[in-house]
Amino acid sequence: MKAAILAVGDELLGGRCLDTNSHWLCDHLSHHGVTVVETRSVGDDQARIVTALRSLSSTADLVIMTGGLGPTQDDLTREAVAEFAGQDLVVDGSALEWITTFFRERDMTMGDAQKRIAMRPEHATCHRNGVGTAPSIRMSIGGGDLWLLPGPPAEMHDAWDSHVSTWLQQASGGQPATPAVTIKAFGLIEAELEARLGDLTRRDHRPQLGTRVSQDEFLLHVEPVGVDDAGYQACVADVEARLQPYVFGRQAETLSDVVGAALLARGESLVTAESCTGGGIGSCIVDVAGSSQWFRGGWITYSNEMKQEFLGVPAGLLEEHGAVSEPVVAAMAEGAARQSGAQWALAVSGIAGPGGGTADKPVGTVWMACHGPTGVTSRRFRLGADRSRIRMRTVKMALQVLRWRLRDIDPMTPTSWDAT
Amino acid sequence: MKAAILAVGDELLGGRCLDTNSHWLCDHLSHHGVTVVETRSVGDDQARIVTALRSLSSTADLVIMTGGLGPTQDDLTREAVAEFAGQDLVVDGSALEWITTFFRERDMTMGDAQKRIAMRPEHATCHRNGVGTAPSIRMSIGGGDLWLLPGPPAEMHDAWDSHVSTWLQQASGGQPATPAVTIKAFGLIEAELEARLGDLTRRDHRPQLGTRVSQDEFLLHVEPVGVDDAGYQACVADVEARLQPYVFGRQAETLSDVVGAALLARGESLVTAESCTGGGIGSCIVDVAGSSQWFRGGWITYSNEMKQEFLGVPAGLLEEHGAVSEPVVAAMAEGAARQSGAQWALAVSGIAGPGGGTADKPVGTVWMACHGPTGVTSRRFRLGADRSRIRMRTVKMALQVLRWRLRDIDPMTPTSWDAT
Repeated sequence: MKAAILAVGDELLGGRCLDTNSHWLCDHLSHHGVTVVETRSVGDDQARIVTALRSLSSTADLVIMTGGLGPTQDDLTREAVAEFAGQDLVVDGSALEWITTFFRERDMTMGDAQKRIAMRPEHATCHRNGVGTAPSIRMSIGGGDLWLLPGPPAEMHDAWDSHVSTWLQQASGGQPATPAVTIKAFGLIEAELEARLGDLTRRDHRPQLGTRVSQDEFLLHVEPVGVDDAGYQACVADVEARLQPYVFGRQAETLSDVVGAALLARGESLVTAESCTGGGIGSCIVDVAGSSQWFRGGWITYSNEMKQEFLGVPAGLLEEHGAVSEPVVAAMAEGAARQSGAQWALAVSGIAGPGGGTADKPVGTVWMACHGPTGVTSRRFRLGADRSRIRMRTVKMALQVLRWRLRDIDPMTPTSWDAT
Repeated sequence: MKAAILAVGDELLGGRCLDTNSHWLCDHLSHHGVTVVETRSVGDDQARIVTALRSLSSTADLVIMTGGLGPTQDDLTREAVAEFAGQDLVVDGSALEWITTFFRERDMTMGDAQKRIAMRPEHATCHRNGVGTAPSIRMSIGGGDLWLLPGPPAEMHDAWDSHVSTWLQQASGGQPATPAVTIKAFGLIEAELEARLGDLTRRDHRPQLGTRVSQDEFLLHVEPVGVDDAGYQACVADVEARLQPYVFGRQAETLSDVVGAALLARGESLVTAESCTGGGIGSCIVDVAGSSQWFRGGWITYSNEMKQEFLGVPAGLLEEHGAVSEPVVAAMAEGAARQSGAQWALAVSGIAGPGGGTADKPVGTVWMACHGPTGVTSRRFRLGADRSRIRMRTVKMALQVLRWRLRDIDPMTPTSWDAT
């Protein structure tokens, strides 16, 4: 099966918005063995959408469109598709009901503009949007198929998972593909990863290994093609073994998920004491639904006064060693644990920049302490030079160090960002 | 001038590589007042490249291609362009010299394959690559122009800065472009925005207004085309006036930036007391470099015990009204301000879901309090049904309410998420 993707939206061509949907769709279509032969982006321009549809439908069996399904005047995808197919637009009863419910449940008033969202070409079907309002639309065109998906990435992903993926499975003969595994690792850089994986990353190795970096996490996608199930599982296990103890999960699992599960299993709880991250660790922890079972809260002690008054860090320690130091960060973790009665406490203090660096403690220097039932461990990192990146790495590294301690893995395991 | 972009490379369609070049080019072309009408990506396939070139050259005055100029066998852009233009490929003497020098200076051996890089269609010109080897190539096609740029982003950027940008300035008559303004607003939904903007959003209105939603913020891009500078500035002012008091900034400005600037100007400081956001407000505040001048820190009181012990919220209030209530959130804000001595305190407590909702307080119910020099204001919101979205909206709404108070705007200004 050959596919083509058509992304619609003036914002995509004006340079203000990066189209990540097309890339995401290419990636997911490839997991189904579908080859994408072309992707295009055009503006919210009915004539151009129709021209692109004519051209793409002549070269691909499946055309997937994203964007332009909203309620505003410049959302013209529906009209263009109806023109292309020579069909009238009609109101879909079920879709109108879904959208009405969506607005009612949120105590929001539905305007006339919103009713446009429930329209579809006469011989098309609507598929419910689990995240927002605009339904996905599917229809046959000539010998092939056309899917219209909403443009906002969260809604597009939901539409794929809820509707397109299942349809594609059936359309391609109902063969259940071996579910692809993505292995996630954090704490090492690409050169180290490459060295550990060795010839597993060769282009002709089967199963093929795709490596992607997202927010400094490695996502190792093992492609379930060219190998039987046993060989596939063996390769997944091999990759995970080679990357221990940096591998923290699979698929959508996050560091917060695995840390939370471990704390829950032990019946223990956690507090945080954050300086440079300003609440980023706590915020990342409460990403997980149900985190109130193991996360009590924490302190954001951005100023030295807050560190002294609310965590009981002695003024002398701050004066002698500075806020970014081993004794201070250890005292923060101990103070947080002592005051809250939690078994575990994570504390961080660092120089996120761009100012505040010195020769001794350059921007990127971060001290981190993990207090647990067996005591405090602290270590120092150099996490780069970019403010938001330093903070992001601090949050993940703190959770990785906590994960190691919860699993009895050496919390001093070398990482690619150890300060020398 | 109308432009189209054609990105070439199998890797772009296989989902392994995100095409950022097209987005980069759209952005930079818009600065020159050039409208991009279409972008496409095709694989390394000579026939498909030729077909795409025929189609794009008929619709655009300028076609910019990226990728496929390397030395390997699957790099077919040169051959495809020669076929399209009906010209022979010839070796460019200067290009061959540049490439030879590049290899010699790096003590690298130049193979025969590398010599292909010096080839160009007969009536084209080569432009030196300041970063790598493959030169950019420019040629006339029919009434328009074609540029071939190398695919690696660093080389493509260099080619733009060194060659294309200058050429474009000359081609467009040397006129410096009016810088485009993007206006940012938060607190209202699309239907309300549409109603306020009225005919400004008409497709034929000049200057044209592009609306994009990112994380529930509206980004209103006013396109500097089809209007003189005075008319442009008047339109920008009109859009901002119609969307008051929801407009908080322009271009890359964030809510944290403007709140921080206002606090700095007043010489006052802020603390936070967060429940459902778990540190998200603090984390968003310290996104701003230098925020330690006005942000002291805060409390993450995820559990009721933390609210009582560290913010002094009376147990009776929690029992009588529950954690998500006006008296509790007001007590959190007052407790945080009192203990820290800060002039301003933001407190939030809500039900982020998916569990914990009741008929009376469904998931999405969030109480928010802002303590300031003139007292506490509290209000209740219904921020949707999705956990991460509720938290994101809570963070932004808290900052918007604080901005209103700092600017003497009514902190009870209606929003699209007011609970009735």
